[in-house]
Amino acid sequence: MERKIRMGMVGGGQGAFIGAVHRMAAGLDGLIELVCGAFSSDPERSRASGADLFLPPGRCYGTFEEMMAGEAALDPAERMDFVSIVTPNHMHFPVARAALKAGFHVMSDKPMTKSAAEAEALVELVERTGLVFGLTHNYTGYPMVKEARHRVRGGQLGRIRKIVVEYPQGWLATRLESEGQKQADWRTDPERAGISCCIGDIGTHAENLAEAITGLRIESLCADLTTFVEGRPLEDDGNVLLRFDNGARGVLYASQISIDEENALAIRVYGESGGLEWHQEEPNTLILKWLDRPREVLRTSSQGLSDDAAAHTRLPAGHPEGFLEAFANLYRNFARTLDCRRRGVEPDATMLDFPTVYDGLRGMQFIETVVASSESDQKWLSMPASRGSNP
Amino acid sequence: MERKIRMGMVGGGQGAFIGAVHRMAAGLDGLIELVCGAFSSDPERSRASGADLFLPPGRCYGTFEEMMAGEAALDPAERMDFVSIVTPNHMHFPVARAALKAGFHVMSDKPMTKSAAEAEALVELVERTGLVFGLTHNYTGYPMVKEARHRVRGGQLGRIRKIVVEYPQGWLATRLESEGQKQADWRTDPERAGISCCIGDIGTHAENLAEAITGLRIESLCADLTTFVEGRPLEDDGNVLLRFDNGARGVLYASQISIDEENALAIRVYGESGGLEWHQEEPNTLILKWLDRPREVLRTSSQGLSDDAAAHTRLPAGHPEGFLEAFANLYRNFARTLDCRRRGVEPDATMLDFPTVYDGLRGMQFIETVVASSESDQKWLSMPASRGSNP
Amino acid sequence: MERKIRMGMVGGGQGAFIGAVHRMAAGLDGLIELVCGAFSSDPERSRASGADLFLPPGRCYGTFEEMMAGEAALDPAERMDFVSIVTPNHMHFPVARAALKAGFHVMSDKPMTKSAAEAEALVELVERTGLVFGLTHNYTGYPMVKEARHRVRGGQLGRIRKIVVEYPQGWLATRLESEGQKQADWRTDPERAGISCCIGDIGTHAENLAEAITGLRIESLCADLTTFVEGRPLEDDGNVLLRFDNGARGVLYASQISIDEENALAIRVYGESGGLEWHQEEPNTLILKWLDRPREVLRTSSQGLSDDAAAHTRLPAGHPEGFLEAFANLYRNFARTLDCRRRGVEPDATMLDFPTVYDGLRGMQFIETVVASSESDQKWLSMPASRGSNP
Amino acid sequence: MERKIRMGMVGGGQGAFIGAVHRMAAGLDGLIELVCGAFSSDPERSRASGADLFLPPGRCYGTFEEMMAGEAALDPAERMDFVSIVTPNHMHFPVARAALKAGFHVMSDKPMTKSAAEAEALVELVERTGLVFGLTHNYTGYPMVKEARHRVRGGQLGRIRKIVVEYPQGWLATRLESEGQKQADWRTDPERAGISCCIGDIGTHAENLAEAITGLRIESLCADLTTFVEGRPLEDDGNVLLRFDNGARGVLYASQISIDEENALAIRVYGESGGLEWHQEEPNTLILKWLDRPREVLRTSSQGLSDDAAAHTRLPAGHPEGFLEAFANLYRNFARTLDCRRRGVEPDATMLDFPTVYDGLRGMQFIETVVASSESDQKWLSMPASRGSNP
Repeated sequence: MERKIRMGMVGGGQGAFIGAVHRMAAGLDGLIELVCGAFSSDPERSRASGADLFLPPGRCYGTFEEMMAGEAALDPAERMDFVSIVTPNHMHFPVARAALKAGFHVMSDKPMTKSAAEAEALVELVERTGLVFGLTHNYTGYPMVKEARHRVRGGQLGRIRKIVVEYPQGWLATRLESEGQKQADWRTDPERAGISCCIGDIGTHAENLAEAITGLRIESLCADLTTFVEGRPLEDDGNVLLRFDNGARGVLYASQISIDEENALAIRVYGESGGLEWHQEEPNTLILKWLDRPREVLRTSSQGLSDDAAAHTRLPAGHPEGFLEAFANLYRNFARTLDCRRRGVEPDATMLDFPTVYDGLRGMQFIETVVASSESDQKWLSMPASRGSNP
Repeated sequence: MERKIRMGMVGGGQGAFIGAVHRMAAGLDGLIELVCGAFSSDPERSRASGADLFLPPGRCYGTFEEMMAGEAALDPAERMDFVSIVTPNHMHFPVARAALKAGFHVMSDKPMTKSAAEAEALVELVERTGLVFGLTHNYTGYPMVKEARHRVRGGQLGRIRKIVVEYPQGWLATRLESEGQKQADWRTDPERAGISCCIGDIGTHAENLAEAITGLRIESLCADLTTFVEGRPLEDDGNVLLRFDNGARGVLYASQISIDEENALAIRVYGESGGLEWHQEEPNTLILKWLDRPREVLRTSSQGLSDDAAAHTRLPAGHPEGFLEAFANLYRNFARTLDCRRRGVEPDATMLDFPTVYDGLRGMQFIETVVASSESDQKWLSMPASRGSNP
Repeated sequence: MERKIRMGMVGGGQGAFIGAVHRMAAGLDGLIELVCGAFSSDPERSRASGADLFLPPGRCYGTFEEMMAGEAALDPAERMDFVSIVTPNHMHFPVARAALKAGFHVMSDKPMTKSAAEAEALVELVERTGLVFGLTHNYTGYPMVKEARHRVRGGQLGRIRKIVVEYPQGWLATRLESEGQKQADWRTDPERAGISCCIGDIGTHAENLAEAITGLRIESLCADLTTFVEGRPLEDDGNVLLRFDNGARGVLYASQISIDEENALAIRVYGESGGLEWHQEEPNTLILKWLDRPREVLRTSSQGLSDDAAAHTRLPAGHPEGFLEAFANLYRNFARTLDCRRRGVEPDATMLDFPTVYDGLRGMQFIETVVASSESDQKWLSMPASRGSNP
Repeated sequence: MERKIRMGMVGGGQGAFIGAVHRMAAGLDGLIELVCGAFSSDPERSRASGADLFLPPGRCYGTFEEMMAGEAALDPAERMDFVSIVTPNHMHFPVARAALKAGFHVMSDKPMTKSAAEAEALVELVERTGLVFGLTHNYTGYPMVKEARHRVRGGQLGRIRKIVVEYPQGWLATRLESEGQKQADWRTDPERAGISCCIGDIGTHAENLAEAITGLRIESLCADLTTFVEGRPLEDDGNVLLRFDNGARGVLYASQISIDEENALAIRVYGESGGLEWHQEEPNTLILKWLDRPREVLRTSSQGLSDDAAAHTRLPAGHPEGFLEAFANLYRNFARTLDCRRRGVEPDATMLDFPTVYDGLRGMQFIETVVASSESDQKWLSMPASRGSNP
């Protein structure tokens, strides 16, 4: 690369959590530099946030619309290359649309939009503009998830029969949103979160992980959503039976009221000749299970891993890589893809290895189907067919 | 106790697995002695099996009917006190019925019968005869399951919201029954196993564990059973959504095709103020999860456990107790109850702490409801109301 | 076997801990029956203890001398076959000597004697009488320890380079012996325990485990023993550097003041081409480490284990076997050996697989060398050469 | 901070491992920018390495001497603030000395020098110049190590009795240095590594961790070093008995031939009322052990942790933080300290929380004492008294 890729950020002002994550992840490999931002809808706060990040006042915008216009007016040698969207859910779509329309690539947090209809519109816009769109389904960025995908898709487990994916958390076990906790506040507010809290926030990660690792598609599902905390307008727990397009069966559950569970995303996949197990909280271990030989324990950066896993690893074995490193893998691949675009060459498969607008659409369809199923007496509801070439 | 309690066994001849388990468990505390048996439907093999166990030929019977008659004819000072039933499923009911009718107490393996109707008949017979009936839902015999029950029922976790119970195994991932494996053979044969393989064999243990620990009852359920191995007439995998009578929700899954899972029964329970987690394969650890303080790790025989847990422990902390010891707890409680009966005194609560005919009925109702649900388009099927005072 | 092997017990009266362990272990497989005992030096208590065990008063002796005489006078068809010694350390030698002199085989708890000199005398007596002598270094009875031994001795790890064996406990972190705790009382009393508390009680298990698994012998050692609890006359913690006879190096440490450690015996062995790791508190798992392929997790009763491991397993994989089952493996092998003796046939290697008088001598030499080393300014003290054919 | 702190790097050119680690760690929080480097002793390669990092050719120096001179000649508004030293061991001292003499602060990799004498000289120079000197004993940067330190030093475990610290690796189990592996090559070469391989490279981390957490000092030690791989001039394994200045005893072992161990640094500390356990490969968990209540499991970013731990955490609980984040904590504290210096204000305790020149001296003394002990027949050798106010 001749120069760093230039990032503008929408959201992520002082006190926000996920903005800092995106900035650390984007910066980790030294390939991306933050050049501007609309960090807050309050212009004063936006500027103060930018100052903390050593940005000049002129690149700290009061609104995302101003940012798009301001950056578009700059010399191409200075102008941002892409927009990173780290707002609450309801703003993802309008910001992404504005960025794409202004000719900027986009890296957005998930869920991608507030509805499948918005997601469809975004797919169309991405296809029309030909711009690059990434989505931070960050858990697929872990090296051992790459390894799991490599093993399953390479057929090492045989035809897949069963998938169990779970995502228990406990942080919403009490009514945190009434105590002024910002993260809880918008996630439990239908205006900003959309029609789902638990499934939208974390259930989609579980869905994405299962489909990304196996390459299978959920064909139909049967869901039971519950709101355990009184006065909360959206669900905080969900259990879902799954049927996949190859005949595999599965269970997916997500919860925000499972006390003392932190961020316990985990997946188990069983095929005709083997199985695997991965836990996000110990992300550097992948367990392989075999029909006819002892269980194996694979570790990040140990010998014998696939190129896929190796390409997403920065340290020798035993030097734990974590959440930020996995997150950074998405940004690194995204940045390399943009660099290829800039230089007019074709990105290779490794660079293109990040979730896209089709994953985002899939996630929104999943949310809507789960919510509909939970309200229905019908046992099985079908998922729409998957679109796009990924994952 | 003045004398050992005398046990007769039906089933469990040479080559059988579960018979030896029952004998080791029954004998562990030196309170029970094996005095007779109808170990096989082949009289020759029954006698040979008895000889291995140092039994005189006269107490090795060719059929269970002969055993009931033969023992009933003996002097009360010699006669067996109870019958231990360790046959394949289809024989549980006829043997239990014959034993009860002949005036013998019964300890039976599970599932208790081949149908809920048979189970109802057995309940009636037990109630009518007033004899003692135990059922080897052995996993509730573990000290840390007692502790879990004590914690939940004592309200330490608050109102229960969510229960996840799972029982994956992998041993039936291939068509073992066609290779002459006896255990696989009868479990996959509807004539001998009943209407279910996976749920009958292990799903009922999961159901029993969840209800025994929490004291809650499954009110309705939604099941998806699958037969993955071609040519197998019964299901080898099942996923079930649960709704409990207090409003709690749950997930139960059992599987016999989850490769390299051995006997991985595990339960997680979450309430309004805490949670717990227990794994059968590491049975001496119970994890407690709290809303407002660090996770605690309780261990069998460590200080501060309940009397319930302590009463079912034989060794100091760090000296692993396993499957047989848990199994033996059922037999020990059962034997002490019989001894009280014999001496005309009232057994205390600890002695009465073993699964009974009502658990057996509950299990059969669960099997039938799950199988019906799996075949139904209706989302939720109700479980019959629970009977009896236990668990 | 034509009849059960008959056991007499010295020690293990009401309130004792290890006596009950021996009885449960001896009885587990139904091959041994308790026929008599000198359970306590108080004749009244001995008889009461025997009554709890359903023994007739005539077989409950007031002293071990009476027991030897009384049993020797009985008809051979009734007389005990062997003596199980479960007293505090200082009584092991006199009882064993008396038993051997009276012609009875012996199974003794460890450490075998109070001194290496006594141990030498016992070796001589065993060799002279030709009687069978077993020692309950029970941890070698675990199936996965058998597997570890099989792997190391079969050369799968290559030439052994390093051994780390540890045995931390925490139960003596306070002065329990001054609170009337019987187990603490005699173990910290030089009159009854001998010259060492921590090394004698648990360090010898660690030494035995390391030598039994690897077949190597400690050649020299350098020890640092400490008494942390004030007023305690014997050490409660010990750290030892080891040099083995093939050039391997090692660390052994034992502790009784490592708070909240229960019984955490563990061993790691590393060779030129592989390594292994085993933890007594999770005894059904053996981890294999390789130079050029992923770590493997072996489990009790899973496929592909050695005959050695399989022969010492009673349950299918995933059904945890624990401390008592491992202990029972020693008694079962011992009983089968006695049965062969009785029938005049040669026991096979599996039957002979239990620790013997030579292990006991080795343990006493280890204790004395460690204590001498701790008191010495000399860096390395040599261990005496090993005797006998085992382990 | 008004502006980023400017870093120059010595070493870390293309193909080097630890240079990239330092750059990612230094850059993670956006407080430090790389402005120049002498990345290689080959000027061509230095410039190429700098180009990869988007540095202008004029700031890519051919030698560290040129870099000191070149940067010193720049306008203070451009000039680097500090030098990061990421060379093999033998260059640490000359580069650090040159940097300090030129007036630049220093962050150096460890071991700090090739000898204690050099380390003494560096202490003197740092004291004389008053410049800031940091040393990347990075493992103390983990939040849960901060928590451990807080707990021990706050007296929660009571008077410390025993410390077990281990650091097994397996990567040098074969003669990797003869296969052209660069990391192995210089580490096993006395010219570049100094008098020790295993203890110098990783044993010092173990020593630093033990002293940093407990605040105790090793008073004397007894070591046994071994070279297992033929033809290797330095040791690849070491076992050490420790005696601490408060009377506590300990074991430290480090190994590079423990096959399939990755980077398994771990520590256990036991006091009179509690204990703790931490494993570098699962760095987000800290286990607390208590005399009179159940074991507790603390987790990075969970509630109830000390300010110390919280200040070194970037993500919510359950979002694994790893090696780079811990490493970055050192750089962040260092950068904030420099910023205070720049602004003429006093840094607070959190900012000053990174290893310094005194830790480096301590490490060199440890290496030399261990090597001397291993060659000595004397059982105990004393460590020099500790200097400086830290850790």
